[in-house]
This record gives sequence, structure tokens and C-alpha cells, in this order.
Amino acid sequence: MSSFGRIFRISTFGESHCAGVGVVVDGVPSRMSLSAADIQTQLDRRRPGGNKLGTERNEADQVQILSGIENGLTLGTPIGMLVNNKDQRPGDYGSMSQVPRPSHADYTYQQKYGIHASSGGGRSSARETIGRVAAGAIAENYLLEEYGIEIVAWVSSVGIHDSDNVDMETLTRAQVDDNEIRCPDSRAAEKMTAEIVAAREAKDSVGGVVSCVCRNLPAGLGEPVFDRLEAKLAHAMLSLPATKGFEIGSGFSGAGMRGSSHNDPFVKKGEGLGTSTNNSGGVQGGISNGEPVYFRVAFKPPATIGQEQQTVDYSGKETVLEAKGRHDPCVVPRAVPIVETMAALVLADLVLIQKMRI
Amino acid sequence: MSSFGRIFRISTFGESHCAGVGVVVDGVPSRMSLSAADIQTQLDRRRPGGNKLGTERNEADQVQILSGIENGLTLGTPIGMLVNNKDQRPGDYGSMSQVPRPSHADYTYQQKYGIHASSGGGRSSARETIGRVAAGAIAENYLLEEYGIEIVAWVSSVGIHDSDNVDMETLTRAQVDDNEIRCPDSRAAEKMTAEIVAAREAKDSVGGVVSCVCRNLPAGLGEPVFDRLEAKLAHAMLSLPATKGFEIGSGFSGAGMRGSSHNDPFVKKGEGLGTSTNNSGGVQGGISNGEPVYFRVAFKPPATIGQEQQTVDYSGKETVLEAKGRHDPCVVPRAVPIVETMAALVLADLVLIQKMRI
Amino acid sequence: MSSFGRIFRISTFGESHCAGVGVVVDGVPSRMSLSAADIQTQLDRRRPGGNKLGTERNEADQVQILSGIENGLTLGTPIGMLVNNKDQRPGDYGSMSQVPRPSHADYTYQQKYGIHASSGGGRSSARETIGRVAAGAIAENYLLEEYGIEIVAWVSSVGIHDSDNVDMETLTRAQVDDNEIRCPDSRAAEKMTAEIVAAREAKDSVGGVVSCVCRNLPAGLGEPVFDRLEAKLAHAMLSLPATKGFEIGSGFSGAGMRGSSHNDPFVKKGEGLGTSTNNSGGVQGGISNGEPVYFRVAFKPPATIGQEQQTVDYSGKETVLEAKGRHDPCVVPRAVPIVETMAALVLADLVLIQKMRI
Amino acid sequence: MSSFGRIFRISTFGESHCAGVGVVVDGVPSRMSLSAADIQTQLDRRRPGGNKLGTERNEADQVQILSGIENGLTLGTPIGMLVNNKDQRPGDYGSMSQVPRPSHADYTYQQKYGIHASSGGGRSSARETIGRVAAGAIAENYLLEEYGIEIVAWVSSVGIHDSDNVDMETLTRAQVDDNEIRCPDSRAAEKMTAEIVAAREAKDSVGGVVSCVCRNLPAGLGEPVFDRLEAKLAHAMLSLPATKGFEIGSGFSGAGMRGSSHNDPFVKKGEGLGTSTNNSGGVQGGISNGEPVYFRVAFKPPATIGQEQQTVDYSGKETVLEAKGRHDPCVVPRAVPIVETMAALVLADLVLIQKMRI
Repeated sequence: MSSFGRIFRISTFGESHCAGVGVVVDGVPSRMSLSAADIQTQLDRRRPGGNKLGTERNEADQVQILSGIENGLTLGTPIGMLVNNKDQRPGDYGSMSQVPRPSHADYTYQQKYGIHASSGGGRSSARETIGRVAAGAIAENYLLEEYGIEIVAWVSSVGIHDSDNVDMETLTRAQVDDNEIRCPDSRAAEKMTAEIVAAREAKDSVGGVVSCVCRNLPAGLGEPVFDRLEAKLAHAMLSLPATKGFEIGSGFSGAGMRGSSHNDPFVKKGEGLGTSTNNSGGVQGGISNGEPVYFRVAFKPPATIGQEQQTVDYSGKETVLEAKGRHDPCVVPRAVPIVETMAALVLADLVLIQKMRI
Repeated sequence: MSSFGRIFRISTFGESHCAGVGVVVDGVPSRMSLSAADIQTQLDRRRPGGNKLGTERNEADQVQILSGIENGLTLGTPIGMLVNNKDQRPGDYGSMSQVPRPSHADYTYQQKYGIHASSGGGRSSARETIGRVAAGAIAENYLLEEYGIEIVAWVSSVGIHDSDNVDMETLTRAQVDDNEIRCPDSRAAEKMTAEIVAAREAKDSVGGVVSCVCRNLPAGLGEPVFDRLEAKLAHAMLSLPATKGFEIGSGFSGAGMRGSSHNDPFVKKGEGLGTSTNNSGGVQGGISNGEPVYFRVAFKPPATIGQEQQTVDYSGKETVLEAKGRHDPCVVPRAVPIVETMAALVLADLVLIQKMRI
Repeated sequence: MSSFGRIFRISTFGESHCAGVGVVVDGVPSRMSLSAADIQTQLDRRRPGGNKLGTERNEADQVQILSGIENGLTLGTPIGMLVNNKDQRPGDYGSMSQVPRPSHADYTYQQKYGIHASSGGGRSSARETIGRVAAGAIAENYLLEEYGIEIVAWVSSVGIHDSDNVDMETLTRAQVDDNEIRCPDSRAAEKMTAEIVAAREAKDSVGGVVSCVCRNLPAGLGEPVFDRLEAKLAHAMLSLPATKGFEIGSGFSGAGMRGSSHNDPFVKKGEGLGTSTNNSGGVQGGISNGEPVYFRVAFKPPATIGQEQQTVDYSGKETVLEAKGRHDPCVVPRAVPIVETMAALVLADLVLIQKMRI
Repeated sequence: MSSFGRIFRISTFGESHCAGVGVVVDGVPSRMSLSAADIQTQLDRRRPGGNKLGTERNEADQVQILSGIENGLTLGTPIGMLVNNKDQRPGDYGSMSQVPRPSHADYTYQQKYGIHASSGGGRSSARETIGRVAAGAIAENYLLEEYGIEIVAWVSSVGIHDSDNVDMETLTRAQVDDNEIRCPDSRAAEKMTAEIVAAREAKDSVGGVVSCVCRNLPAGLGEPVFDRLEAKLAHAMLSLPATKGFEIGSGFSGAGMRGSSHNDPFVKKGEGLGTSTNNSGGVQGGISNGEPVYFRVAFKPPATIGQEQQTVDYSGKETVLEAKGRHDPCVVPRAVPIVETMAALVLADLVLIQKMRI
């Protein structure tokens, strides 16, 4: 249940305070050049920074490649990767909190397993995504080398502030990383930054939306029924902590439209066909049509806040909870590379599956 | 790739003009009472009716149970089910259209397989969902008998018209089916009906949103990482034809909120814990917490419209396309039982998986 | 659990006395020419004949193709196939036997499911293999067309009588089918026939061994660890009713050899390499090496015999069981096409998986 | 493709000369007591010893638990485990052998992946089994604690020398480990030892058979069709390096029997039923019947021998190959815990799947 993908398949392991977190990546094509540096770049992008927006923890998160690569080339065998946890001391049960944190997974883990990790968020911790990002970097590397596929995500809203000035056709990661908020629309970025600072000052947190575009996909990716491209993407995105929604192409606003304006007419593009509009989001009948695939992912405000919260303990007794320490008031800037990762994992899998048909 | 579910697992087959459509349902618990009538009820709800809103085709869609049931009891073995197609004549290649229909799957199927069914929507046709609905009726039966789980979906918007007067705690299918639009808010239903009629008169189509609530779920369903309950639901819903978005609980609007108002405080409920609000949509850390699970699914306007559309043929030559015959101007009323079906399939699978942990 | 294969994937359904038995075949490559006659040929080979060796039942077993094929070409979508059962009347519970038949699955089904089909062998019945054979015929068709792969099985022993005069390099199905026993060594076939006749006259049954060779496999099929070619074949063969053993290449006799005589030295063959001996059975490190893959499958004597058997009923009370009617005293002649089928299903899956690597 | 199991699921990684070998174990029940020592015991049993029979390498193989366990209890989350490789220096391509070793995987890996690890056996190396054994120890722990299931394997033949004096009902691992050959029949063990010594002196190797018994299984394990208990066991065993055959219960000798003597009559045992003989090997219709499950696995002689071998290089040019260093002349004593491991992995998976039915 901790695996994702059919052919390009990852299995992650690890929680907050165990020895380490990592991943086994199976199904990676052989003879692809790959180095630890290729992987470290994305890991560094997802790392909590030392800036005013994120938490002040500074985790090095240095990846160690355990297998599957020799002399800089993939062998076609599983690639094991490990990132050690700095703080491996689990809490002891005596001091373990008797109060499940509201909108955290403490209570549901306890209901599911009859036990939960004594501190941290267990497998629901953002730390679990390290394994995904390490694997996703390999997928991205493959997609780019073999097909020229580019995946770029960015912050398109924080709280009620939206960006509206982004060119999906040309957007680059360098442009996204140009500011800390990872919103390439600099005017919107300013408002978003102010919102995050305000939330922090109010000992509160704030949600947001990450958008993502995948360019240069060949037509034909995705399966017609249960493994439609958008279904796989939705699954991938909603498997990320704190996500509440997914939409592709016209999305929920498309539900308000008439067919005559929603349909994407075909036009001649180069040697083949394209569409003159892209309300479909690059997917028709669950299969890529060669146009850019773009989608949006909603993230709720982080559940950990400094304010006092009225709640009850496991026995049902009323109590007040107040989080200690410093916490990230908004996850969406850090979520950007994680969204790219999940898109890359989906596409690498579908590209390999489609290879069987050609 | 035409299978869904890990333990309660379905495999569908069939397209528009072959001999029939159907499903094999594996992993059904044994000794459950089950009759063809149990299944036919939901099949009849998804059938295109003869009313002024839907198409006027009248397909009987009588289910035939092929295996897995004896003397009204399930044997624990796979249940095969078949619904014959009335019109089995595929078009012949000579007359096959040279024009891929805009926002249909003709073009992408051709790109993927190098061939596509000579008429109809192939596996992307709504007709494929017959197998799902037949299987979903079995899942619903199990969930209700064993856990008292109730799943009710309804139309919450058509075009720009939303309903806002629905009590998710008590809503029944009878209330939903009380009008043709399947919107239990009768004032909204009137506006929605008018919108559909207007779209039809304009030889156009219109989109909408289906909402769904699942009640009486035990806490503990869903897996913490890739198979989070919301991820499985999102996958299931986006695997339906014409869907463009999914949101659970607060959804996209939750992305605009602060944590202090989004968090769901715990309160004592009966012997255990509940939450006083339900922005989480009944899921925390990917696992059900015992509160109602509710979500929304966006459907685009149907691609088939009577209006002329400017497009190109496979060779890239400009042409005008005009759909013949009568077509459904809005799919959301018929999508209601299909959304319920997919929710039931997800929950039956997760319930069985969780049984291993107890 | 009723599915087999990762990409070329089948899901069978049906038991002895339900409406029918069948299969859904997913992952079949598109644009392959395929007719019902292609499938019927193998179904006819597995059918109980009217000869003196098999049972005298004569089941027509006419296959109906439900989906996935149009105008004689595969669409790439799931192919559903159905064979109706002639006798659909399940026994009623009142008259259901209270005595589990020795070495049949009655008792274990009852333990597993708390219920079992009121007559016949349920899913353990040989009738379940109809779905497999129909699917296997498609796999064979693909393997032969695309790669020239030939699969030929034959009876290599009945009781204590072995054949020793078979040329695996040239053996054809026509040669195998030349006698009723399906042993191409005619002298051995005579002894085998006599043994079967003797067993029948003694109201007894007799076991045997089916051997199989797969020729013209490309090198590179099979995965190095859990999905080694021989592991998949062993899984496939031991999934057949009445099987007790599997060996590939030198098999159990190889365990008695020294490495110096067991190793297969490489030699130049055509443009590439081959081996001068083939104790490996065409597989090294779990992966095909281009030499013929050959293996043997042991079948126990059928459990249904006309002799009286001392046993107990479900309550533990001693009783005597005596089977009514006519039963097949030896299954191996009919098992020949079924063994070929399972080999074809394994190879089609591995061929498609390997296509992703090229 | 490097994963095994449906619910209790392992994914192994690592080859001979990378950083390490290991495994991720998913689906482990929560709240089970588990320590590194529990796992190390079986790892030590599989380790090449320093005795006269095995190789003289002494690899410490100390397991590091990375995740999934806290304060000595399983969390229900994936358990990552790692064993570092002592010698991590892969060979460089310049010096890489141009000669594929006969009956090794060098040639087939090259055909499959277009590359292979520059030294050692890659994923076909016995070293890959470390991850399996670590995972299997967890499975055994669970089976013993929850069901009292005992799994004991032993060497039943080396070369042409068989043991015939083993009581499967009472055999213990302590008895098996009483001599270096792991054959509890001490007279046979002496002959086996002499055979191994003789093979070593002749710079040769020798094969053998490992037998295994699984006791105290509940009735009802295994699925009726593709995942029959014997099919899963056969798959598991044939996935081990150097295996050539598998038989359960009467096995190949059962193929020579008449049904009247092969059938296992039912008798009253305690509160339920058992059988008076056990030719079935504890399985009927693919499902355990409560009697001991026993089976045999054939291992070929190791391909690496000190003698000169006439072969060809990758270009087809004739050459002579002579292995350097000391090699294990017989793998079966070390294979004993590995066979137990694979049996435990199969049974843990089937036990969990059956839990859903009760």
C-alpha cells in the first residue's frame, strides 16, 4: 500500500523519527545516465529553507544511492535511496500526548493501527515525500532525455490571492524559483508573501493552490477507463498530505460552461493535429492529445498552528491545545517540487506502458 | 488496465457496438444474499430515460448474472455479469468518419492504438459504465448490510446554477430521485431544468457538478500514503467520462482559509470522538475518522452538440462537423448513480483491506 | 485473485453449473487479426472427446466473443469471451451431499468460504480452464505472428510409462494429436493407452506428466528476481487443477549432477551466442537465453473414482463414498492444450514487458 | 518486478557490489513485537560460514532497521531494512570480462538490459536473498505468534545421496542445524558431506534438494484458481537462484500412482476433519486443509567451478574460462533458511488475505 505505479514503481518507507526515509524505485530503464546530483537538486528544492516564509529548521537531506547505478549508468535494477533522519529519538510512551491534534492524523492512525508513532506525523508527515521526490527526479530525468517532456509547477494562489499572469507555454523552473513564494507573477507574489507573514504573525496558517503544466507529451498516454491520465494524476496529487482538490483543464469552471464554447476544435499543427483551445487540459477520453497537460491542486492550511485550540483528549475530556515551536504557516511553496514529482511519476509509468503498444 | 480495486476488484469489458458490455467482480465476500433485482435497480437509475431532459433512446439494459451466485447467495467466486447491446452492428470502414469529433476520444484512441471502434465512443462511451454500476450495486449491498454505510449522490449544479439547500446528514435517494434533475433542492432544480432545456434548444450542451456523501463509515479506512481515501476517490471519480475535477471536504475553497477556522476540533460523540466541524470531509491523514465523507465531481458539458463546429479532418483539412440525431444535453442527472457506484467500489475495497488489521 | 498476468492479463469467471464460464483478456495488442475460429481450435482440443479414453460427455463449448474485436481486428480494448454451460441447474441445498469427496476441494472450499457450489467442483473444476484456453489462444496467436514463437506440449508419461523418443526441436502439434493419448512416441502411447484402459476397468484413475517446449523465444524474457521466467511458468502450471510438480531443464535430475557436466557452454550460433547443451532449459538467471525453454508438469490421478472409498462425512461419521456416472480416468491428454495455454499467457506477458526495455 | 506478495509485500534492492542490499516490507500488521535480533538470527543462518563446506568469506551482514518499528513494536507502516556491502568497488569497464560465464546470468542480463553489473551476479547473486530473509523473519514471527505456524526446511539430498529418515511431524530447526549439511538424517549427512568435499577437491560443484514442512496451518489458505497455495509456493521457490524444480505432496511420484491409493480419505481429527494419508501435501483445490504442507525444491550445482571450461566470448571467439578464488561447491545447506523465508512470505500473505473472509 506504500507503492505507486505499475511499471515505473516506487515503494517509500520511513516516518519522522526513525533512522531514515527512503524509496526503492523499480522499473527504471537501463543505461540512463544518472548521478546523485541529479536527484539532490529536487530534494534541495523541497527542503524547508531558512527564509522568512518556511520553517527555520535546516535539514541537510543528503541522498545516498544504495543500488541500481554503476559508473553513472542505471543498471535496470531497483534503485534504493536513503536519507538519514537527523533526530532519531522517538518519544517514549510515558510522555506521549494524550490529545489528538485537530485535523492531524493522530486520531485516525490510532483508529486504524491501534498504535501511532510517538511523535511527528508518522507516514503522513511531509518527510515521507523525500522518498517520492528522490524517485521523481529519476522519472523527470528519463522523461526529459527520452521525450523532451518538461514539467513546471508554481504557486497560483495563497489564501484568497490568485496569480493571473503566467504563460504556461514558456514558464521555466528558474522563473518559478525567482521568488521565495514560487509564484512567477511577481505582483501576486507580493500579496501572497504578505498573507503568509500575516498568518504567521497571527500564529495561524494559510492554504493555497499549486498549478502545474506538462509540456511535450506525445499523444497516446493514459488508458481509456480506470487509468485515465487525469485519474492517475488526481490519485497522485490527492496522495500528497494536506491536499483537498484536483482539477484538470477547465476543471470546476468547465462545469459551468456550454459545450459550444468548451469543445476544443482541431487544427493542423505541424505534421499532425492540435487543438485551437485547450479546455480539455491536454487529455481527451483519458488519453493525452499532444497539447500541454495542466492541472491545479488545492492545499488546505497546515493543521499545526500556534493559537490555542479548544478540543478533547482521547478519553473525550475537554482541553486546550497549543502547538510549541516554529511551524510552516503555508506549505505551497515547498509543495511545488512535490507536485512536479508526482506528475513525473505518473507520466514515466504511462510512457513505459505505452511503449508496449508501439 | 481495465481493472479497478485491489481486493474487491472489477474488470469491465465492452464498447458501444459489440455484443455486450459487462464486468467480472472478484473478491466479493461469500454468503451474501444477492439477486439480479438488487443490481437492476441501480442499472435502471443510470439508464437514459425517456424524459425531456435525457436522450430518448430507451435501452432496456437487463443484467444477466453469469456466475458466482447460487440459490441467491454469493459463493465467494467471481461474479460475471453481462448486458447485451441492442445494436451490435459496427460501422464498416468504408463509411467511417474521417473527422475526429472535437473533445471526443476519436483522435486520441487513434493515436494510442492505431485503430478505433468504427462508431460510438469505444471504451470512453458512457455505455462502459454499465459494468461499473452492476458491480457497484454489489459493493453497496455489502457496505449497507455489513456496516450500515449509506452513499447518496445528487446534482449540486448545472451550468451556473447551484443548489444550496441540501442536508447531507439525512438526504435519501428517494429525495434525490424526486425530480428528473436529481437535485433535492427543488428551487434550484427548476433553474437547472430550465438551463438544460435552453441548452437543448440552442443545440448545445451544459456541464454540472455531482455531490456525494458517504455516511456511517467506520474510522480507519484508507491507507496513509498512496492509497489515501481521498486519493482513491479522486482516482475513481476522474476515471468517469467527462469529469474535470474532484474536491473533498472544504476542497478548493479550503485553500483560501486560515488554519484556525479550517481545523476541525474534536468533541466527544457517543462512546468515541467526533469533530464539531467537518472541513476535512471525514478524512484526516488519508484515513476516515468516522464523520461523513463528502465530495464533489465536476462534469464538462457533453462534447456532442447539434451546432455546427469548425474543425479539421485527420489529414488536417478544414471542415464543418454537425452531429446527427438526439444527444443528451447534460449528463449529470444520469451521473448520480455512477458516482455512487465508484464511491461504493472504493469503500468496499478499503473496508476489506482494513478487515485484515482488526 | 482470479486474475493472472501483469500486462497481458486475464480474469476468468464461472463454475460448473452457473450460466456460463468465460474470461476477460486485457492488454491484448491492437490491430492483430483474430477470429472466433482461432480460439475455437484450442477449445476443441481441450474438450472432453467421445473416445474410449476420455469421458463420454460431449460439450459443444462454442465460444462467443463479446467485445474487443471489430471486423476481425483487435481494438486494444478488453476481449470478453463466454461459453455457455449446457446444464445450469445447481443442486438444491436439501439434497446436497454431506460427504466431502476425498482429495477434492469440497472440504477446503467449505473451510474457506463457509459455502460451496452445490454440485461439481466449483472453481476447481476443469471447466474453469475454458476461459484460460480461450485467452491462451489469443496469446499464442500474438506470439506466433510477432515472434514466430511455437509452443508444443505432449504427454510424456502416464502412470509408470514414460516416452523417451521425442525430438523437441521439431515436434509439432499435428504429431502430438496423431494419437488419442497425445504422446508422439507411438510405442509409449500404446502402453499408456493400455494403462488408462486398465485403470478405467478397475474403476480407478491414473496420473501422468505433460512436457512442453517453447521455441524461438528471443533472449531477454523474464525478470531477474521474483518474476523469473521459470517462476512464472511454475506459478502458471501449478495453478492448474490436479498438478503436483514442475521442473524446468534438467529439473530434479539436475540436482544430482556435478556442475562440470550441468553447465551449458556457450557456442557461436548464427549472429549471436547459443549453448551446446541445454540443461538450463533455456533460462539463465531467470531470463531466456534464446535456446528452447522446456519443462514438465506432474498431474496426480483424478480424485473421482468409481471404487468405494472409506471416508467420513462433514460431521465426522464414517461412511462409504462411491462416485456415480462416468469419469475421466486420466486427465493428461486433455491437459496438453491447457499447459500450452498457460505457457502462452506467461510468455505474452513477458514479451510485452520486455518491449518497454528496447 | 522486484516485489513479491499482494498484502504482505516485499520489495528488495541491491546487487553484489553496490552500497548495500535491503528490502522494504509493506503490510506488516501493527503492534507486533519485533527486534533486530529476531531478524538477525535467520540472516546468520543464511550467511556463508567459515566451515569446510561453505565458502570461507565471512560477511557480517548486520541488519539495520530503518523504519516501521518503534520501541520494539511494529507501527503498521513499511519496515525498511539495510545490510551494507563490505566491498562496494564495482569493477571498471576496462577490465570487465569479455566472457559470459556458462550457466550464469551475464549473457542474459546483457541481452535484457544492454548492460550488466561489472562484477558479481547482479540481482541474480545469492546476496539479493539477504533482503528476502530479513523480510521472511518478520513473516515467520507473525505466523508463529498469531497461528503457531512452524516452518522447517532441511537438506534432503546432495547429488545422488538422499535422506530417508526424517519425521516431518516433529522436526525442529535445532535438529536441522545439528550438522553443517543441515540434514537431520545423520547417516545421510555423512554421505552428503563426503560428496561435497569430493566435489570441492575435483574443483567441481554439486546440486541437491531442500525439503520443507509447514505445520499448524489453518484450513482455508490459498485461492482457488491462479493463486492456489501450491502455485504461490512454486512461484516463490522457483524465484530463488539455481532452482530447477518444485513438487508438493506426492509430487512427480504421484503422477505414477492410481487414484485409489493417491486419494487421502477423510477421518475425524479433534473437533474437525483431517486426512489419514497426505499425498495432497496439505492442499486440496489449491487451499490448505489443515494437514502439514510439505514440498521439495531442486537446486542445480553452482555454475561457478574451478575447472577449466571451454566456451566463447561475447564476440563468439572460443576461449577457456577458469574461475578464480574459492567458491561454494554446494548451495543447499545455505538455501535451507531461504526456502523457509519464501514459504513464510507466501503464508503470511495468504493468512492476511484469508482474514478478510472471516
